[in-house]
Amino acid sequence: MMNKSIPRDKKNDYSPEIIGTRHEFIVEKTGKGVDHLCQYSFDPSITSGNIENFIGVAQIPVGLAGPLVVNGEHAQGEFYVPLATSEGTLIASYNRGMRLFRECGGIKVTVVDDVMQRAPVFIFDDARQARDFGIWIDENFDEIKKAAESSTKSGKLRNIEQYAASRMRHLRFNFTTGDAAGQNMVSKATFFACEWIKTHYPPLRRYLLSGGMDTDKKHSAINVLHSRGKRVVAEAVIPSDILKRIMGVTTEKLYAAKPFILAGNQMAGSINNGAHSPNGLAALFIACGQDVANVAESSAGIAVTDLDDDGNLYMSMTIPSLIVATYGGGTGLATQRECLEMLDCYGEGKAKKFAEIVGATILAGEISLASAIMAGDWVSSHDQYGRNRT
Amino acid sequence: MMNKSIPRDKKNDYSPEIIGTRHEFIVEKTGKGVDHLCQYSFDPSITSGNIENFIGVAQIPVGLAGPLVVNGEHAQGEFYVPLATSEGTLIASYNRGMRLFRECGGIKVTVVDDVMQRAPVFIFDDARQARDFGIWIDENFDEIKKAAESSTKSGKLRNIEQYAASRMRHLRFNFTTGDAAGQNMVSKATFFACEWIKTHYPPLRRYLLSGGMDTDKKHSAINVLHSRGKRVVAEAVIPSDILKRIMGVTTEKLYAAKPFILAGNQMAGSINNGAHSPNGLAALFIACGQDVANVAESSAGIAVTDLDDDGNLYMSMTIPSLIVATYGGGTGLATQRECLEMLDCYGEGKAKKFAEIVGATILAGEISLASAIMAGDWVSSHDQYGRNRT
Amino acid sequence: MMNKSIPRDKKNDYSPEIIGTRHEFIVEKTGKGVDHLCQYSFDPSITSGNIENFIGVAQIPVGLAGPLVVNGEHAQGEFYVPLATSEGTLIASYNRGMRLFRECGGIKVTVVDDVMQRAPVFIFDDARQARDFGIWIDENFDEIKKAAESSTKSGKLRNIEQYAASRMRHLRFNFTTGDAAGQNMVSKATFFACEWIKTHYPPLRRYLLSGGMDTDKKHSAINVLHSRGKRVVAEAVIPSDILKRIMGVTTEKLYAAKPFILAGNQMAGSINNGAHSPNGLAALFIACGQDVANVAESSAGIAVTDLDDDGNLYMSMTIPSLIVATYGGGTGLATQRECLEMLDCYGEGKAKKFAEIVGATILAGEISLASAIMAGDWVSSHDQYGRNRT
Amino acid sequence: MMNKSIPRDKKNDYSPEIIGTRHEFIVEKTGKGVDHLCQYSFDPSITSGNIENFIGVAQIPVGLAGPLVVNGEHAQGEFYVPLATSEGTLIASYNRGMRLFRECGGIKVTVVDDVMQRAPVFIFDDARQARDFGIWIDENFDEIKKAAESSTKSGKLRNIEQYAASRMRHLRFNFTTGDAAGQNMVSKATFFACEWIKTHYPPLRRYLLSGGMDTDKKHSAINVLHSRGKRVVAEAVIPSDILKRIMGVTTEKLYAAKPFILAGNQMAGSINNGAHSPNGLAALFIACGQDVANVAESSAGIAVTDLDDDGNLYMSMTIPSLIVATYGGGTGLATQRECLEMLDCYGEGKAKKFAEIVGATILAGEISLASAIMAGDWVSSHDQYGRNRT
Repeated sequence: MMNKSIPRDKKNDYSPEIIGTRHEFIVEKTGKGVDHLCQYSFDPSITSGNIENFIGVAQIPVGLAGPLVVNGEHAQGEFYVPLATSEGTLIASYNRGMRLFRECGGIKVTVVDDVMQRAPVFIFDDARQARDFGIWIDENFDEIKKAAESSTKSGKLRNIEQYAASRMRHLRFNFTTGDAAGQNMVSKATFFACEWIKTHYPPLRRYLLSGGMDTDKKHSAINVLHSRGKRVVAEAVIPSDILKRIMGVTTEKLYAAKPFILAGNQMAGSINNGAHSPNGLAALFIACGQDVANVAESSAGIAVTDLDDDGNLYMSMTIPSLIVATYGGGTGLATQRECLEMLDCYGEGKAKKFAEIVGATILAGEISLASAIMAGDWVSSHDQYGRNRT
Repeated sequence: MMNKSIPRDKKNDYSPEIIGTRHEFIVEKTGKGVDHLCQYSFDPSITSGNIENFIGVAQIPVGLAGPLVVNGEHAQGEFYVPLATSEGTLIASYNRGMRLFRECGGIKVTVVDDVMQRAPVFIFDDARQARDFGIWIDENFDEIKKAAESSTKSGKLRNIEQYAASRMRHLRFNFTTGDAAGQNMVSKATFFACEWIKTHYPPLRRYLLSGGMDTDKKHSAINVLHSRGKRVVAEAVIPSDILKRIMGVTTEKLYAAKPFILAGNQMAGSINNGAHSPNGLAALFIACGQDVANVAESSAGIAVTDLDDDGNLYMSMTIPSLIVATYGGGTGLATQRECLEMLDCYGEGKAKKFAEIVGATILAGEISLASAIMAGDWVSSHDQYGRNRT
Repeated sequence: MMNKSIPRDKKNDYSPEIIGTRHEFIVEKTGKGVDHLCQYSFDPSITSGNIENFIGVAQIPVGLAGPLVVNGEHAQGEFYVPLATSEGTLIASYNRGMRLFRECGGIKVTVVDDVMQRAPVFIFDDARQARDFGIWIDENFDEIKKAAESSTKSGKLRNIEQYAASRMRHLRFNFTTGDAAGQNMVSKATFFACEWIKTHYPPLRRYLLSGGMDTDKKHSAINVLHSRGKRVVAEAVIPSDILKRIMGVTTEKLYAAKPFILAGNQMAGSINNGAHSPNGLAALFIACGQDVANVAESSAGIAVTDLDDDGNLYMSMTIPSLIVATYGGGTGLATQRECLEMLDCYGEGKAKKFAEIVGATILAGEISLASAIMAGDWVSSHDQYGRNRT
Repeated sequence: MMNKSIPRDKKNDYSPEIIGTRHEFIVEKTGKGVDHLCQYSFDPSITSGNIENFIGVAQIPVGLAGPLVVNGEHAQGEFYVPLATSEGTLIASYNRGMRLFRECGGIKVTVVDDVMQRAPVFIFDDARQARDFGIWIDENFDEIKKAAESSTKSGKLRNIEQYAASRMRHLRFNFTTGDAAGQNMVSKATFFACEWIKTHYPPLRRYLLSGGMDTDKKHSAINVLHSRGKRVVAEAVIPSDILKRIMGVTTEKLYAAKPFILAGNQMAGSINNGAHSPNGLAALFIACGQDVANVAESSAGIAVTDLDDDGNLYMSMTIPSLIVATYGGGTGLATQRECLEMLDCYGEGKAKKFAEIVGATILAGEISLASAIMAGDWVSSHDQYGRNRT
């Protein structure tokens, strides 16, 4: 019985028969049923390309927050935001922030950059060869671009960053990828580019398609500097009386606490000086068919506040590497598509709109938790809403 | 119609009536239906404490990988691992790694630390007062521990780290939390401790329950050093012929490429020198009712390899901040519980076992992608399994 | 002629004859004289233990700044600070800051921690063995301490931090080292401890005396968290009118600019959110016989400001890893000793006093440059004092 | 007597009278003499532009190491390297490394980049304005370049990097600066550019000449990625028998230990995965009239090793931000100039040559300490040469 494999003709068979066989296999192997996992409302064959060895679905509770008022370039007006989570209080908290910003006239959101990478490394005999190679790359950019783009309809090679260390040249290929997140698209396009380079630059003997500088599914300093996915800024000005009334804390107090927290962030080496953006990101990503592993990159955040002479608090959150899509990946699955459609964000031409809504949602969550910490009602609200294990 | 709120008597009402009203509201507001979202196989009232403004469920495809052979202290033997994802190739890739390690005799996994934090900051008139406070804290640890633990059944205060900057004293309270992830538990316990401190240390005038050093839902250097959640090491020795046969690459080649990739990681400032652990983490977290936002902390990774004289590759992945639970949070939801039960990991006494299975799964994914990059079949496999948007 | 070595009987011969021979050798080899290098005011034999192959001295200009008013626990009153540098404007700038703080009543400085490390790594067969070893280390701390301290008169083993990754246990030995910086002292003591461990813990087969976590002559996150050398906080409150009068900028403006600069620091991944502490550190280190390579660790800084309702600016600089000595190393050399004596900081019992003066000097430099950037007179002052290459 | 200032007509008076008065002042104020400080071999007026309130010189012992065999593009052949330090063993250690590499045929060194920065921040009403500004900057690069270069003879504006966060646009101006380090030159040129921008871009209301992304006198991730000063790679191949004979350790053993140390570096968050480059940097910087505070940036290092099938060890050190000059600053001072001339590196056209020698020196120090740690003779050699305080 050891090492008996999961039954399959092929991994990508989505017929009721093979799924049923898998269920029997699970029961036999684990003694446990899959009574809920097996209840899904769609034809499993639509998951082809999304999953192998399909056995059913995880049912993640979805709640609604909003209306969120967004003043974007692509998203404008009120949105009701579906959030998938099992963390009590989360939706109540985001909802409270949305209410606050409604009273402030909404959240301005701007996508300031948009790019996806693959970063191969080229290894030479010495640093001088590697440097010469770098020059050659710059001189042959047009040809390399052509080679890369021959593999894709939507991907466009924007530029190639170069990083030198030892006898290596790390190249970071930056693509625009339309409404897809584009990681696989740019992998393939970069592979095409690399093969063209290998053919046309004889001194090259070794390269790796990923040399550790992409950095896919990982936070990195380079992602903060040069973005990965969309770089999004959400910002708003909060009058003091509104904050006081809804959150029970003054703008002055919130602003004045920041330097102490920033010093804590700096000592801790934290990649996010805001409150908890990954909570909102994970909830939106699950609901809306995003690649949830991208919470890793998207979790970085730069929170900046300012206070004017009248006590109005300028508040902003910059997400330097927000990776989202409205096309491809999991966006077309049954509930995922519904959630995107609820935001009018399904399909082509919608990725920036969706990014703006994500940015605004995140800012709403930031003010809510930051205020709660200051006002001292953080623990009590969890007691009220949460499923706390004591 | 502006700013009309989501209908609710209260956010925590899970009756069919209120859910139906919410659905009508969505249709009215967005013009879109929720035909799939509203199909769930459980009584929504079980989500009380997990979500507010419940409208239905996200259905995330789940596939099965395995058997995964784990040589843990808590998990021993074969496991069939449910992974919830919409990223094609992911399960095939993890499955391939599991097959490799089966032939190597399985993966040894060890939980080497287990701790959860809340880190308040205490602000004084000057650094000297703050330093004195630090001494007082050490002297009064037993009393503080008692105050903290009065709020919780499972949480135990293990130790308090101290960090000094400016006129602040940042304290990082470290708790063991049993089989719950414990973030809310430790928030409450730390709040109790802080209030006790405030009463008994008159010079204290200001504190914040979170001073930016926790660092919850964020990667940080401090989490890498001192863990957050479970610190897990997964390791195995791979004979050269097995790697060559299954992955098409030699152990020598894989080992020799590492220094070049590590230099890329270092330049990029990456928090994870492995291949893609967040892919497996997110898929397991969604399937098994974990707090998916914790992918942020859990995404850090330290990959270490070694090669012996016979060409056997020692491979390890250390996850310094793996946050998992088998009790509380979303673990008791319908499909989530089924997935945990499939691994015999539901309920009390199972958290370390589950952590070991997660660690082993991650290592399987690491060898698979690392080999694919080296062997050059990375792009082609995505073409075979993936839903690539070109 | 190829590869002819520098003449020496032994490297540590400081007789006029051998020095003269070296000078002739330089002239012969390079065609250049050493007319200035060879002019020193002391008997070169005093440099025994400080240098090998002695050929003379670098003459670094020293200027005086002050009086610096320090309200330390060890340094109290006015100090005239010798700074060795060739960077025009530097002394004028620090002097200006000292003048400002004189008018504010001086700078309060506190040494909040004091510790020096060596961090060996112990390598085992697997993570479980490594974890067991960690437990054994805790249980045998007293014996290990005895072994370590048997090699030193002044060094005391305070505690051992433990860090786990892969099949390793990294131990970070923390010593107090009196008035010496203590790097060599702790290396030797740790070596003694490790050899004792190797004898008494048979499962151990491999260790390295430095496993990359010390981190000597390098900035690191761990040095920021757990200090290396002295952790020093310098702080003062600046009334608005004084800042305006001396620096030409208001406290409000200075405070309000900080969040924007901090966001820049965060994006850049800077290890110091202040203005330019390494300028003052290098100048003091050279003048006062410190190990100048320790500018690397000492360069980290945490600048925190606060503003009260009356517009008074609280300003602080925390140097988490200030490595200084008043005994041993270069402190006894001719000019170095004079500079330390000028501060009444030469010899035993003076290290914390000196650390306080360093901290206060740094804060004076911070306010000066920060104000200059805000007031817009930064470039013009360099034109006035500096040796600018245009 | 309180707060009596240092006597001066003006800070920049270098006459014997004023210097004498300062000496008397020191004696009066501190009760200590300056018998050695006041002994210098040059006319103090040459320090005009280097220092204010001149009182004398620090005499730092200089030793000689070498010959160092360099295979650079600018430095070729044998060099005798002056190192100013008071750390016993340091010169002996570097000398040993130089001997090793002589036997290996020398060290290849390459300057792969060369650039100096100033990074102002521009603050707008919102992120959209900031983004528009960024576009305008790109479109007006030629004019901005002209404005910047109008202030300098040697500085050339190469490119402007842009970084967006909140409602800011951080610009990082990259200049080539000839043989000067160029920090003041680029500050002034950037100031000219900013003033031109302020005049020609009316929406701009606020800017700071430094927005925290330069990052001057500080290590940062951006310096590692995009260099600051010269990016230098030193590399060599070491045959196994030579390493064994001179250092007492095999190439295989040295190579195999690296992954364990790298894991330690990663956990510690170290900015340098080599052994101790700041030791050599500080010693060279002091001897050769460099700005010693730049040890802060220059201390970063990327050490990469490789092992071929015959056991030859490829070893490299990349210094991403080596800031050196052969003209301007302190390079023309008496002993400093002699040391530069000893290397044939004084004056115009020599900066890259000097950078290559620095790089080679550093690599020599790396192999020596790394070998000592492996061979176990680290502590004993310090006992032999050092001035150890026990």
